[in-house]
Amino acid sequence: MTAVGIDAIEIWTGKLQLDLPNTFAPAKDQDPGYYTEGLGLETSSFPDTYEDIVTMGANAAKRLMDRKGLVPDDVGRIDVATESAFDNSKPVSTYIAGCLEKVYEGDFHHANKGERKFACVAGTQSIDDAYNWIRAGRNRGRSALVVATDTALYARGDPGEATQGAGAVAMLVSEEPSLVELSTEQGYGSADETDFLKPNQQFPSVDGKRSMQVYLARMREAVEDFESVAWDMHPEDFAYIPFHTPFPGMVRKAGLLGYRHTIRDTEIEDELADEIGRQPREAEYDDREAYEEAIRGYMDELKDTDAYRDWYRRVIEPTLNLSRRVGNWYTGSVHVARASALAHAAENDRDVTGEKLLVGSYGSGAQAEIHAETVQEGWREEIEALSIDDQLERRYDVSYDEYETVHDAHNHEMDRELEEFTTPEGEFVHVGWGRMSERKYEYVE
Amino acid sequence: MTAVGIDAIEIWTGKLQLDLPNTFAPAKDQDPGYYTEGLGLETSSFPDTYEDIVTMGANAAKRLMDRKGLVPDDVGRIDVATESAFDNSKPVSTYIAGCLEKVYEGDFHHANKGERKFACVAGTQSIDDAYNWIRAGRNRGRSALVVATDTALYARGDPGEATQGAGAVAMLVSEEPSLVELSTEQGYGSADETDFLKPNQQFPSVDGKRSMQVYLARMREAVEDFESVAWDMHPEDFAYIPFHTPFPGMVRKAGLLGYRHTIRDTEIEDELADEIGRQPREAEYDDREAYEEAIRGYMDELKDTDAYRDWYRRVIEPTLNLSRRVGNWYTGSVHVARASALAHAAENDRDVTGEKLLVGSYGSGAQAEIHAETVQEGWREEIEALSIDDQLERRYDVSYDEYETVHDAHNHEMDRELEEFTTPEGEFVHVGWGRMSERKYEYVE
Repeated sequence: MTAVGIDAIEIWTGKLQLDLPNTFAPAKDQDPGYYTEGLGLETSSFPDTYEDIVTMGANAAKRLMDRKGLVPDDVGRIDVATESAFDNSKPVSTYIAGCLEKVYEGDFHHANKGERKFACVAGTQSIDDAYNWIRAGRNRGRSALVVATDTALYARGDPGEATQGAGAVAMLVSEEPSLVELSTEQGYGSADETDFLKPNQQFPSVDGKRSMQVYLARMREAVEDFESVAWDMHPEDFAYIPFHTPFPGMVRKAGLLGYRHTIRDTEIEDELADEIGRQPREAEYDDREAYEEAIRGYMDELKDTDAYRDWYRRVIEPTLNLSRRVGNWYTGSVHVARASALAHAAENDRDVTGEKLLVGSYGSGAQAEIHAETVQEGWREEIEALSIDDQLERRYDVSYDEYETVHDAHNHEMDRELEEFTTPEGEFVHVGWGRMSERKYEYVE
Repeated sequence: MTAVGIDAIEIWTGKLQLDLPNTFAPAKDQDPGYYTEGLGLETSSFPDTYEDIVTMGANAAKRLMDRKGLVPDDVGRIDVATESAFDNSKPVSTYIAGCLEKVYEGDFHHANKGERKFACVAGTQSIDDAYNWIRAGRNRGRSALVVATDTALYARGDPGEATQGAGAVAMLVSEEPSLVELSTEQGYGSADETDFLKPNQQFPSVDGKRSMQVYLARMREAVEDFESVAWDMHPEDFAYIPFHTPFPGMVRKAGLLGYRHTIRDTEIEDELADEIGRQPREAEYDDREAYEEAIRGYMDELKDTDAYRDWYRRVIEPTLNLSRRVGNWYTGSVHVARASALAHAAENDRDVTGEKLLVGSYGSGAQAEIHAETVQEGWREEIEALSIDDQLERRYDVSYDEYETVHDAHNHEMDRELEEFTTPEGEFVHVGWGRMSERKYEYVE
């Protein structure tokens, strides 16, 4: 069976930077350590006045097409995942195609365009759609352009304000991919949950505590579902495990859950037994509550063991390097985590060709998806072509006053005109609205 | 290759009825013939106060599950298509799953839930996703539940107000389907268009004239794209051709376009040559404009020929029977047209087993999709199980004053309490909002 997976990836960050410990924390009169240690965030990316989900997505896609030497006829579908849409009918993918048609000869008139919404998990769902389309034999040799793009803004003063972010990840899904092959097997954990909503509103209503519980509960279900069709996983099966990363602190909890689950009945559990005992088994307890209490006690001890710390440092920590600097990108977040992990391997001259990743995606509302990926031969070349580090360094570092004004400028309910902070060059920009309130874009040389 | 397609379908109409010639036209001081003859509409369906996209979708889905004897474990994905979403993050499919879990044992925790948005074409895109998922070997023997649900309301006074509608179509996509097998071949015509938008608004902004041009232009591209991978179509290749039907008048134009395209270089064109000449060929004209003018002239004559009228009456007209009585259901519209056609065959004792349908879907913004379907052996049993005729007859016929108040009750920007017009029974109803503005539903016995 021909391998199908992600051939190439490009990341485009919002061009402003909000420094959490040095700008945000002092303005909020808070301990900088709450951001850097608790949440695990240093800076977040923020869109400049001329940026939105279309410009960021189109810019990431153009960079990807240019680097891979693609023309519109090579692309059979454009799938956009977002939870920051500004239209209830017209999909963002049509706007992105319109942008790209300004700079390429030819058009995308025979490409299927779509838009998926399911909080932060829709980026992975869109990759799956593309994978299935190729496997179904409908692609006619063409690839799919998948774009996960979001402006993850919160209402001013909302606890989530610290975890904001803005950026886009463009991915090419194709046969014989250069980066990673996707597993046919998938695991799902999905339930009707009220943890994070945007009912007819731009900024979310969030129940933060509930959202963390739901993330972990759905992820556990997804892992069990994946194992039911794949194999009983061992913590050393994977070079890296990129999780959806609303903020790195969340992934610390997910990583511990995953480690506890996968060491059960392995030599690792045996080796740890002297130090912290064996894992509680549900059958040994009178009720679910007592069992869960015992599991929590075991996990408290597990997280301080050398075995876990070493595993976390090798397998999870490297997935968070970019997230610390960009905040939450919603649909793009887990794909930033994958790129971060592979960049870590490249920087450390580790050859991960043929090794596996376990990818844990999550969207509030709520659904987790688990699948495996096998790193392909061309991974290093693809990852080394990323310009995200340069982009991050070039971000304009906003003062708190500037942050307040640019937040207003992106608020759909405010009509705030603002000079841009950075000068666009070689990119798509949002230039205004047409007579039907459609957004207008131009390419700036 | 195992056949994959639509195994079963259920239709749920909004429970109110607005009579266009007898209630709407007099109130607007307009000629009733504008509605019945021009647009081709008799009545439209409207949601009662306790109905919304979730209740209509869940009710259609429950009816389908009950009739087919399904339990939640039989369903591997729930895909919802809508352009009437009330949340920018949490998908409608989670709400629908939550409703269904109230009445079935078991749950949908290992089913992939999603939501697609692309104006009216997203219902067909969701069927394609489900088809591809099965073809990719990821369904584990399970089927996909696809729900196209919309409340197609327009601002009061908008020209589109006459074409409103509300309802849901639930479809089960599976291996060895009872109703229709889908073709692997698809044709797309897609461009970045500003014909119909909902920029941060519930009700659409519409450029009606442009939307009709775009519908036809994109449909022509899709037909050409389909022929490039399937075969050169002949008008008699298909028992019926269900098109997206915003209103039947639109389909009259699409049908004529399709007929003109498919008779070219056939014996039909030859036979008509004495009467109206042969079709203009582009090469015979100095410029595109002159050619298009000539084509328009040919089509004006073509539409009055007996050959065309007979074909239209057999192949297109039967697809419009339901649409005349329900208005535009957006994502569900083309699927209502398919059901209408097959119901016509059943009523007329015509066995269409093994015959082909050509399905022409369209979404503003804009994209047309063309694929073929082969009618399966179980089609008659499936179609005869539909209760839509009974549902339509039971609708409460609103007065104009009542129409005005219930339109306000569904307006997200108004806070209007209103007594329901009908009494729910054996169905899901919307009962209010929770503390995070999440919608709350109950099942009424």
